[in-house]
Formats: sequence, structure tokens, C-alpha cells
Amino acid sequence: MVEDAKKQLGITVKKEENISEWYSQVIQKAKFADYTSVSGCMVIRPNAYAIWEKIQEIFNKKIKRLGHKNVYFPLFIPEHLFDKEKEHVEGFEPEVAWVERAGAKKLEERLAVRPTSETIFYESYAKWIRSHRDLPLLLNQWCSVVRWEFKHPKPFLRTREFLWQEGHTAHATREEAEKEALTILKEYIDLIENYLAIPVVAGKKTELEKFPGAEYTFTMEALMPSGRALQMGTSHFLGQNFAKAFGIKFLDANGKKKYVWQTSWGISTRLIGAMVLVHGDDKGAIIPPKIAENKLVIVPIYFADSKKKVLEKCRELAKRLAEFSPIVDDREQYTPGWKFNEWELYGIPLRIELGPKDLQKKQAVLVRRDNNEKIVVPLSEIEGKVKETLETIQKALFEKAKKFLQENTVEVNNREEFLKAIKAGKMAYGYFCETPKCEKAIKKQSAATNRVIPLDQKEADAKCFFCGKPAKRKSYFARAY
Amino acid sequence: MVEDAKKQLGITVKKEENISEWYSQVIQKAKFADYTSVSGCMVIRPNAYAIWEKIQEIFNKKIKRLGHKNVYFPLFIPEHLFDKEKEHVEGFEPEVAWVERAGAKKLEERLAVRPTSETIFYESYAKWIRSHRDLPLLLNQWCSVVRWEFKHPKPFLRTREFLWQEGHTAHATREEAEKEALTILKEYIDLIENYLAIPVVAGKKTELEKFPGAEYTFTMEALMPSGRALQMGTSHFLGQNFAKAFGIKFLDANGKKKYVWQTSWGISTRLIGAMVLVHGDDKGAIIPPKIAENKLVIVPIYFADSKKKVLEKCRELAKRLAEFSPIVDDREQYTPGWKFNEWELYGIPLRIELGPKDLQKKQAVLVRRDNNEKIVVPLSEIEGKVKETLETIQKALFEKAKKFLQENTVEVNNREEFLKAIKAGKMAYGYFCETPKCEKAIKKQSAATNRVIPLDQKEADAKCFFCGKPAKRKSYFARAY
Repeated sequence: MVEDAKKQLGITVKKEENISEWYSQVIQKAKFADYTSVSGCMVIRPNAYAIWEKIQEIFNKKIKRLGHKNVYFPLFIPEHLFDKEKEHVEGFEPEVAWVERAGAKKLEERLAVRPTSETIFYESYAKWIRSHRDLPLLLNQWCSVVRWEFKHPKPFLRTREFLWQEGHTAHATREEAEKEALTILKEYIDLIENYLAIPVVAGKKTELEKFPGAEYTFTMEALMPSGRALQMGTSHFLGQNFAKAFGIKFLDANGKKKYVWQTSWGISTRLIGAMVLVHGDDKGAIIPPKIAENKLVIVPIYFADSKKKVLEKCRELAKRLAEFSPIVDDREQYTPGWKFNEWELYGIPLRIELGPKDLQKKQAVLVRRDNNEKIVVPLSEIEGKVKETLETIQKALFEKAKKFLQENTVEVNNREEFLKAIKAGKMAYGYFCETPKCEKAIKKQSAATNRVIPLDQKEADAKCFFCGKPAKRKSYFARAY
Repeated sequence: MVEDAKKQLGITVKKEENISEWYSQVIQKAKFADYTSVSGCMVIRPNAYAIWEKIQEIFNKKIKRLGHKNVYFPLFIPEHLFDKEKEHVEGFEPEVAWVERAGAKKLEERLAVRPTSETIFYESYAKWIRSHRDLPLLLNQWCSVVRWEFKHPKPFLRTREFLWQEGHTAHATREEAEKEALTILKEYIDLIENYLAIPVVAGKKTELEKFPGAEYTFTMEALMPSGRALQMGTSHFLGQNFAKAFGIKFLDANGKKKYVWQTSWGISTRLIGAMVLVHGDDKGAIIPPKIAENKLVIVPIYFADSKKKVLEKCRELAKRLAEFSPIVDDREQYTPGWKFNEWELYGIPLRIELGPKDLQKKQAVLVRRDNNEKIVVPLSEIEGKVKETLETIQKALFEKAKKFLQENTVEVNNREEFLKAIKAGKMAYGYFCETPKCEKAIKKQSAATNRVIPLDQKEADAKCFFCGKPAKRKSYFARAY
């Protein structure tokens, strides 16, 4: 029966052997997402949407504490508005979905389905901001965006519609806006490393890779087990580019008219895909305890004569462990083995097994999802042990991913070392001249892109690993999703 | 200064004199919403979005307790899918916004921007549901929908895009699905009456007014001070209409293939508009305490010599009252009078004033937003008094609205009484034959529509107030938004 269950539910390919097929199977069999008849768009199912709700809860707390407020701006952006910032429109236009007709009527002006909302936010900012007293303006919105890419879609990692948050702020000074962009970067790093348990390399994007319309872009990059880098989120310092395009001005304390300084920043449901790729194993997904809605599943093990007692004890345990939102899997039609497999597939971080023998011994068995370790725990100490074990799992997931990142990041000093590293599926870092010409040549020859220039580097008089010309800072390169 | 503040911030028209203009001013001046350059679409600003977040929090708790889970389905619905249920497509097609182009490419099939999501949900339901063990399937989504109406837009009440939740459930039996539709109706009534403090008349829609594709529709109707009724939310029993159109079948416990029974239900940001209309007054919005993010504002009143002490005490009070999320308005540049006006405009339900004399007497002054009552309270008892006063406000708002509803609902026995009642801006109820022909005649002559047939009526042998033919049940009629 257990073997039957495994076959029906389980992942039929090993992560190490074919990560792309493994990923597809986990996403669908763990009921994280499913395809629809809308090409390139997917359903986010409850098992994954609950993770998104956790991310929302955590990030809302962070930004509200810092004074940000949530809003909702229209889904549609009139073409004339969308066209106002030159770099911006050029960056997004090839992927915009357009509404030209409503009912039987052709619209006078076509409407972009938002690919990002700078332009529609800033039209209002120009109306709302009058005085330095109106600053800073710190708004955020949770919504879906549409970018009609023609590359092969991959659930969570690349879909034509995805969910995200987009923050949009306006400040009286450059310094304050730059500080905001950096503050948000740090909050993102905390969310991704300390909740999603994924280590990142953070820093700036090059001119070629930055957001269209930004003065510069902060990014966090993570390395997936496939050897490809994944951009986990970005925080842009927009300077006064949009302020000038939209006329967002304020009277300062001395009565002088000035343009505001702005930032925008976002993370998306892509983070859920990263979580699956980084932590998952041949049995399915693994959800880090801090972002798991249900951190725990309690599986009763009984025979006819012990059923009532065991179930009672399980429910009593669930009450004592309520802070971890445990599931009690009391379904009659499935064996314990089937249940173990199903919850492992879904990625619930901890399982408690409780049978008649355990009752006699006043104990329960904890089973860690991440490494299968079984821990026998006296029932009297279970709250503390569960808490401690969940913390251990959270830490172990991060440490494992960190070790992978370190072992697969290679310092390179010349073109040969670089190409070898990229070919081996590593992330490469080395001194880079930061010229667009060299960056394009690297991409052409290796398919790797510049991922990030880490912050706080001591500048050096070095040579570019690729072209040999002067270089001051190191960059990370990798092939990317 | 106080007078200046009033002029600049305040509402310049009385609610009784011109409710339409009053509503527009409150919405904009209280920073609930603003217009954009997208015709018929609006920005929901932080003061109103926070109310929506409260509604989400309350309703999520309710439905999750009942076993529902949240998901996210695509924004777009391919035309062939949208067309599958005949009544449904006929009901919505005139208002659908269509995407026909992405980037430079014309799409092979045009995509509807969701006006509601039955069709895209049920395509997946047909895939996911195989056995009675997969039932009931209880999913919900929070999203925006687009209905390109050509009537005059009104923020929250009628906009081309709005936010809502849509629940979609599938069940093994008719009884279970009918029970679900009714259970949700009751949860809606609880939310609207006990949190938003708006009394409703609940029951069924007529055949003419029901949801396109439903077997029947439950509704809740509220009466606005303008004398117009507003539909506050609907819960549909879909029967097997969609199940048959989409082929949603399951194997029952005896191995027999059967179609599922379904429901769908929704409430929207329209509720925020209703809240403003029902509770607001000449000073601005009034937010019922249970759905106010900040239930309380503390305004310090001081002179140069008492400033430090008063501010300290205000902050100490804020800590003691943390459960009510108080705002401490310590802005230097505004007078207390300005602050009073601003927070009254925004609708914060309770204000605490604290000055040097209050400090001496170890007291504070509570001021109720709903009726301006001032209550002097010893500081030692403030937690209890604040809690009690907020409960009193919540109750008073509901009672006042209930009284209005009762006083403006008229029983009618004949055509003359009916027309007189509608002309006077009342809601009329009386025995109605429930034939579409008579319903259309009523609408033509009075502009009033059938709002609701209340549940649990004892059937009678009566005559229709309008056409005189046999009638068994009473209906409510009114002009509606």
C-alpha cells in the first residue's frame, strides 16, 4: 500500500538527474500550480497561495512599521501616460498586452494592462504632492502584472501574469530616496534569507541590466541547483527621471519649487519557485517552517482497538500545539504510509507520528521533513521540542543552501577560467571593467549575464577578467532564468 | 485658524441637501479614492484600502474556519471558454474588455479581462475533481474584475474596475450546495450588519434579477440615505448549469458518475461606498470601530511650558491603548482644531484630547465621532472606558441606520401607494406576483426594481399590489444604484 501510494503521488524523476522535469512534477503534484488554457498563465493553488499569504503578512508588517501604506491603482494604463518616460516605455512595450475594445465598442485610446505601475502612480503623485509636508509619500500595492513574454513559460519563474508587490515612494532629497532604496533591499534580504531560507548575493545591477527608467537598481541574486541564477527582487533608485516626466514638484520649507526623488521596488510569486528549486528533494517540496501555514502534521497510527484513544490524544496534542497550526490527518480511507508521502510531497516541515505504543510510553515521534531524522519526544515536553526542531529545520535549510552557493561560486581571473566555470554551471565572480561592450561580448560567448556588483567593495586597480582593461570592482556572472 | 482649516479641508455641502455632491466630496477629501486618467477607474487610497484590508481579514477568518482556501486564477479568460455557458456569456459580454494584441503581435484568440471567474475556475474543476473524495471543493480568490459599464461612474459604487472576492464551490449533492449558498449569505450578513453596521434585507432575487447562469441568487439589500437601494453582495446556487457546460463529474461512493452541484458568491469594495453613504455626516466619513484600522486618535493640547509633559503622557496612553491602534497626532505645524477636523473628516471613530488641565486632574476627554459627545474619563480607567465607548459607537451606528431603514420602508397594497412610496424615495414592500411581465411594467413606470424576496415567508393567498393577480409572497422594490 505504501508503495502504491508512492507511485501514484510521487515524483518519478530525481532532482539531480533532470531538474527541469523534477520541478514541473513537484509544482503540479504538490498542488502548487496548474496550467490553464490561457497560454503562459497558471493557477496558483492553495498549497502555494498560502505561502504567498505568509510572504504578504511578513512583508506588510515590515513596510507598515516603516510608515508605508497599501493602496490599489487601476489595472489599465492609458497609452499616452505609459509613453511619458522614454527608457521605461522602450523597456516594457514589446511585452505589453493591450485592451482596444470593450463590449462592442472600440476605445478611443488603447489601454496597457499594467506590466508595472510607475506611470499610473506618478500621474497621481503629481496631483497629491504640493508641499514638503506631503513627503515622504510611501505607498505600496499588491496586485498582478502582465508581461507577454514569448520565451518558454515555467510556473512561478516565468509566466505572462504573476503576483507581486510594487512599492512607490517620493522624497524631498536624493539622500533620503537612496536610503529608502537601500532600506527596502535590506528588508528583502531579511525576508528571503531568514524566512525563505535562501542565501543571496546583493548589490547593484549594471547599466545594461538595470530597470528601464531607473538611475540604478539594487538586486538580490540566488543560485539555483540547476546552476542558474535567479533574480529574487529589485529596488530601484529612480532619481528624478519620472518626477521630471510627470511634473512631480513640491514647495520646500523655503518656498522653493523642487522635483521629488523617487524609488520603486518589487518582489513576486517567483520567490515560491525559488523556494521549491532550492529546498525541494526527490520526495517533493520542502517549505521552510517560518513561511509554512501549517508547520506540522499529526498522523495517528492505530488499529481498531486503539483508534479512539489515539485520535483523542492527537486532537489534544493539536490543541497544545495550536501556535504551529497543525493538521490532524484523521482521514479514514488512507494508510499512515500514504499520508506520510502526501505531506512530504506538499512540504510540511515536521510530522508527528502517534501510535498505541507511543501512548503507553507517553511519547511521540517527530520526523523532520528536511533530513528524515526521527526524534522521540516525551509528550510532556512536546511544545518546546517542536519549537526547537522547527528552528533547527529553518537553520539547516539555510545552511545547506548557503553551502551550495559557496561551493558553486568560483573566483575567476581570466577568460579561460570564466568560461570553464560557466560551462560547469557555476556562478563566477571576478574583476570586471563594467563597460556595456565587454558585458555584451561575455553574454554572446557564454550566455552568462552580469547578475550583480556587490556593495561595499574596496576598490582596486585590477584588470577585467574578460577584456583585460582596467577594472575596479568585482561582479558576479551566471546563466540566469 | 480652526475656521481656515474647516474651509480648506471640509465638506462644503450638506448631506441632506445634495447627497451626490456630498458623497463625491467625502470620498475625495477624506482621501478614500481619487480619479485617474483611466475613464471610470479610480485609485483606492490608504484611508479606504485599510478598510478593505480589515474586510479581507474578517472574511478570510470566517471562510477559512469553514474549510475554504484561497487561490489565484488568471486575469484572462479565452473567448471559447467564456462562451461555454449561454446565459452567462449573454449576461456579461456587453461589458467585457478584450485583449487582442500583445506587444506587436495579434493574439490567435482574444482574451476577456475577467468580469467574473466562473468559466476559468470550472475548466480546472473539471480536471481536478475525479472522486467524491475530492469534494467539497471550496475555493476563494481576492482580485479585481473589470466590467466596462457605460453608465456614469461613482467611486466604489459603480466603477469599471473594482476589487472583490469570489468564492467558487463544488459539492456532491444539491442539498449540500444549497446549504453552502445560504451559509455564505449568513456570513455576509454578519459581516455587513455586525462589522460595517449596515442593516440589510436578505433573501432571493427574482428570475429577471438573478445572476446569469445561476439557478437562483441570494442577495442582501441596504437602503442608502438617498432613498436608493444598494445590492451589498450575492451568493448564487448554480445548480448543475456550469457542471454540465464544463463536464465537472465525479465518481460517487457507489462508483456512479455524477455532475457536481455548485455555488459562487462575492462582495466588493462597493461596501466601502455603502459605509460612507450610510454613516457619514456633514463633517465627513464615519468608520464603524470594528472595521477601523485606527480606532482612536490622541490629540495633545499644550502650550510651550506644558508640551513635554503632555506629549509624554499621550505616548504613554498610546502604549496602554495599543490594542486599538491609536494614532498620536504630534504634528507641530497644525493646531488641535485643525487636527480635530482632519480626523473627523477621515472618520476615526474616537478622539482623545489631553491637555495640561487634564493632566492635573488625572483625566482625559473622549469625543465620539458619531454624535460629538464628550466623556471625561479618569486616566486610571481609560482602557475600559475606551473599549466600552467603541462598543457603544458600533451599536449606535447600527441602530441609527436600522431606524432609518424602518422609517423609510413602506408596506404597499396597491399601485397608487406603491408609486407614491417610490416617488418619496422609500423602499416599498408588498405582495407581488413574481411574473417577469409585471416586474418589467413596474420598472418602466417607476424606475424601481425588485430588490429582494425575503426568505422564510409564510405563503398567503393574496393579490399583487401592481397587477392584482394572485401573489404568494412579498417583495421589496426600490430605485437602485
